[in-house]
Amino acid sequence: MAKYAIGVDFGTESGRAVLVDISNGKEIATAVYLYLNGAIDERLPGTQIRLEPDWALQDPQDYIRTIQNTIPAVLQGSGIEPADVIGIGIDCTACTMLPVKADGTPLSALLEHRDNPHAWVKLWKHHAAQPEADKINETARGMGERWLDRYGGKISSEWFFAKSLQILEEAPEIYAAADRFIEAADWVVWQLTGVETRNACTAGYKAIWSKREGFPSQEYFAALHHQLATIIDDKMTRNVRPLGEKAGGLSRQAAEWTGLKPGTAVALANVDAHVAVPASTVTEPGRMVMIMGTSTCIMVLGSEEHIVPGICGCVEDGIIPGYFGYEAGQSCVGDHFAWFVENCVPESYQQEAQERKMDIHILLEEKAARLEVGESGLLALDWWNGNRSVLVDADLTGLLIGATLSTKPEEIYRALIEATAYGARIIIETFQDNGVPVHELVACGGLPEKNKLLMQIYADVIGLPIKVSASQQTSALGAAMFGAVAAGQATGGYNSIYDAAKVMAHLKDEMYIPNPDNLSVYELLFAEYVTLHDYFGQGGNSVMKRLKAIKANARK
Amino acid sequence: MAKYAIGVDFGTESGRAVLVDISNGKEIATAVYLYLNGAIDERLPGTQIRLEPDWALQDPQDYIRTIQNTIPAVLQGSGIEPADVIGIGIDCTACTMLPVKADGTPLSALLEHRDNPHAWVKLWKHHAAQPEADKINETARGMGERWLDRYGGKISSEWFFAKSLQILEEAPEIYAAADRFIEAADWVVWQLTGVETRNACTAGYKAIWSKREGFPSQEYFAALHHQLATIIDDKMTRNVRPLGEKAGGLSRQAAEWTGLKPGTAVALANVDAHVAVPASTVTEPGRMVMIMGTSTCIMVLGSEEHIVPGICGCVEDGIIPGYFGYEAGQSCVGDHFAWFVENCVPESYQQEAQERKMDIHILLEEKAARLEVGESGLLALDWWNGNRSVLVDADLTGLLIGATLSTKPEEIYRALIEATAYGARIIIETFQDNGVPVHELVACGGLPEKNKLLMQIYADVIGLPIKVSASQQTSALGAAMFGAVAAGQATGGYNSIYDAAKVMAHLKDEMYIPNPDNLSVYELLFAEYVTLHDYFGQGGNSVMKRLKAIKANARK
Repeated sequence: MAKYAIGVDFGTESGRAVLVDISNGKEIATAVYLYLNGAIDERLPGTQIRLEPDWALQDPQDYIRTIQNTIPAVLQGSGIEPADVIGIGIDCTACTMLPVKADGTPLSALLEHRDNPHAWVKLWKHHAAQPEADKINETARGMGERWLDRYGGKISSEWFFAKSLQILEEAPEIYAAADRFIEAADWVVWQLTGVETRNACTAGYKAIWSKREGFPSQEYFAALHHQLATIIDDKMTRNVRPLGEKAGGLSRQAAEWTGLKPGTAVALANVDAHVAVPASTVTEPGRMVMIMGTSTCIMVLGSEEHIVPGICGCVEDGIIPGYFGYEAGQSCVGDHFAWFVENCVPESYQQEAQERKMDIHILLEEKAARLEVGESGLLALDWWNGNRSVLVDADLTGLLIGATLSTKPEEIYRALIEATAYGARIIIETFQDNGVPVHELVACGGLPEKNKLLMQIYADVIGLPIKVSASQQTSALGAAMFGAVAAGQATGGYNSIYDAAKVMAHLKDEMYIPNPDNLSVYELLFAEYVTLHDYFGQGGNSVMKRLKAIKANARK
Repeated sequence: MAKYAIGVDFGTESGRAVLVDISNGKEIATAVYLYLNGAIDERLPGTQIRLEPDWALQDPQDYIRTIQNTIPAVLQGSGIEPADVIGIGIDCTACTMLPVKADGTPLSALLEHRDNPHAWVKLWKHHAAQPEADKINETARGMGERWLDRYGGKISSEWFFAKSLQILEEAPEIYAAADRFIEAADWVVWQLTGVETRNACTAGYKAIWSKREGFPSQEYFAALHHQLATIIDDKMTRNVRPLGEKAGGLSRQAAEWTGLKPGTAVALANVDAHVAVPASTVTEPGRMVMIMGTSTCIMVLGSEEHIVPGICGCVEDGIIPGYFGYEAGQSCVGDHFAWFVENCVPESYQQEAQERKMDIHILLEEKAARLEVGESGLLALDWWNGNRSVLVDADLTGLLIGATLSTKPEEIYRALIEATAYGARIIIETFQDNGVPVHELVACGGLPEKNKLLMQIYADVIGLPIKVSASQQTSALGAAMFGAVAAGQATGGYNSIYDAAKVMAHLKDEMYIPNPDNLSVYELLFAEYVTLHDYFGQGGNSVMKRLKAIKANARK
């Protein structure tokens, strides 16, 4: 009898379940639930309470509604017996965290707190905790905290303690009322199993935890705020568990929500980007995974721990047990092209696309593909949304150079694609230069499906072959794979994520091979990119920051 | 009885006549003739003979047709007696030159030569003589020719001897057949009067002539090409006459063409940009004229000769007799905004303009005007068409810095306007720093009429008040003013261009005054512009040239 696992992927605007055949990774059924309250960035749901700029929240009930809607839907759609579903895994955006009571009740579900924005889930892209992040970084530098190196020298405002400290400073009553601060991913697992667990991935990448050193010291937290000193023991736990473990069995209540059998194995929670790595067939060092969507997440495994400047994090067992998982990122990739299409594509091109019944992106790709490498004379710095790796500087901005009166929209479009490829190459070379080998790329996410030109440009710029994940929903597939591992071989699953990946993860047949002619021209262009990257990004001319400062003052 | 003058302005695609009341400068009637053969850049008229890239020609018969069409039209339109028209002036683009026989017949009018592109008028924007210009400059530097300093250190490929040398090198039979090489402006005056004259303006700005030193030496010309050694005495003349003189009286034939009286005074020819200076009321130092259209021509008078680095030229008596006329320029102004509108304005904006029945430029101006200074965070280098002054480098290209995912089209549009204003300020400061005072600006040309935001930005960036010429056809008006001066006071005209300007030239009532708040923010932004200008324009990083070299190789 065939066995199945379900992966549920909790995104920014929706959640998605996929039912997967454990024997071959085939995706049998998919269901998507659009969150009732979406990403909340204007008003608290059902109120006139306005959020300040840079806030982004979610409603935890949307996670429950996702489970209640999507799992029954994939079961029904497939006609598969609930008893044949032996494991469930979930993944979520991170750091996406919330304050809850000791029994798991979100503070946002309590009448007394629900009108306080700090009672709600702080979504990964909640950017209002920058002052707290600045304090975290300054204090760490001042105290010589060595863990800072593991995070490229900088803790992001998106991460766990910046968000926690913001709650403490801006809403001490919420901080006091919260018995637990928890990642949404772990909270969902708690709701499924009745058991509170903490996974090594979010703890390592977002909450400054490491397998060898644990969390930062009490003294460090006290230096941030005296009330924060005991946050780990008061509101979290030091029991952080490695990925691949079973969190517990499906609770009776969750079984009712889903139609699955009580006791079905539920895996420890995972993060959407990280869980895509084994789902892209990567469980060993040297093969870098690029999850390419609005932004790009870059993951690679290493056998040793190295300090790599400007990356997002290095966490032992953080992606695949037994390896150091390195994460880096580019904050503006698909977003970049979307911005261009919305703001810079002339009417004549839109009309041509309409007449030829083409998506405008496809038309631009067609026109851009006709250009020879270097023909546009353009070069861009891909910093429209700052630079995540390796400069770690949100105040950097975009640059385009080389424009003439003959410059065409498709030339700019191609230059923006090339710029993101140069940015990726900088990251890859930084890993390589610091002891973390990279010899092949595997792409997944939305972009590789949509834009073959982009993939070929990446191969030509970077000079490495690029393979593409066969799944169009690698995160959900990866979560299902961890579900199969939580079930274990004895019940029809797998004993390790390595075994699961061998069978359940696949690549497409096509791959992108660097074209030597293009590569040689891109060498010249990349050298120019590096010069500009260093000049504008490393203090040669901080004009971008000064322009931002002038901008900030302009409306005052 | 009122007296009148006619000015005829020969442009790139058309010629225009204006009939002006000498007593007050009122423009009584205007007529435009669209050249039958336009600017010729693909095929020789009536043939399949293709032109090479960068070529641009005109048909001299189009000048005659302009005279035959427009002068009768303004007479007829106004009902004014031909006898009351006492003077004619003309102006033309320059250097726009042609080879002719001793009797003035253009070689392009002769069957034996008409199939040779070199027999035709080489239009100002004929850019195929760059190798010859390079040779002219290298040779001059090698021989230590001091006149090079008067031209900002570089002779343009657009100018007289580059074009002449190209004819000699590429079509020696045309060079040999030509009895005269002559500016189109002087040729038109010849056709009107039957007398060959040469004016100091084109000779000074385009043919390296100066009142004190004459033309370059025979040794210099011989060093360029042995056959060129005697070009001045063989095919030109050393009798170069100051502006404001009468060239001759209208010939019987030209009287027939026009309906005017034979013997009507015809002024020495002038150049379209330079003749706009007195028509903008400027006949004294300190008040700079900006002729703003697709590109911007900048003119200022000085009492002394100064070497100003990177300007186009300094010619004694070249604009107004008695002064040194300084010329500088920006090669991409109106063209810049036209490029932006054609290539970068999204469909949604075009639709909004259509719904509100507005020109798209007006809509962009409206949106851009709502922005505070510095609010966009953007800065541009206005080098989409290279830099004419003061870097004198056609290989520089455009740059935009400061873009984010929130950047809007009107922000880019405003940044491009601001960039041209910064470019103008660099030129003005270069004059001021080198002993040529500038304390007020007078704008004329198409742009000041169309874009009030642009004018205010210029005032705010430059920190000087800007007045605007009352005439929308300052070149033709200026030509008519010189016609009135050619006629002289005795016949109802004026004895000098100063006298004519006092009565016939006017400014609009409105003027643009710098806003001190804006000025203070623009000081910050201009400082950033200067840093980038020097870094990219003066060898700090020659990436623009390297990108152009890569581009040139891309299609090979």
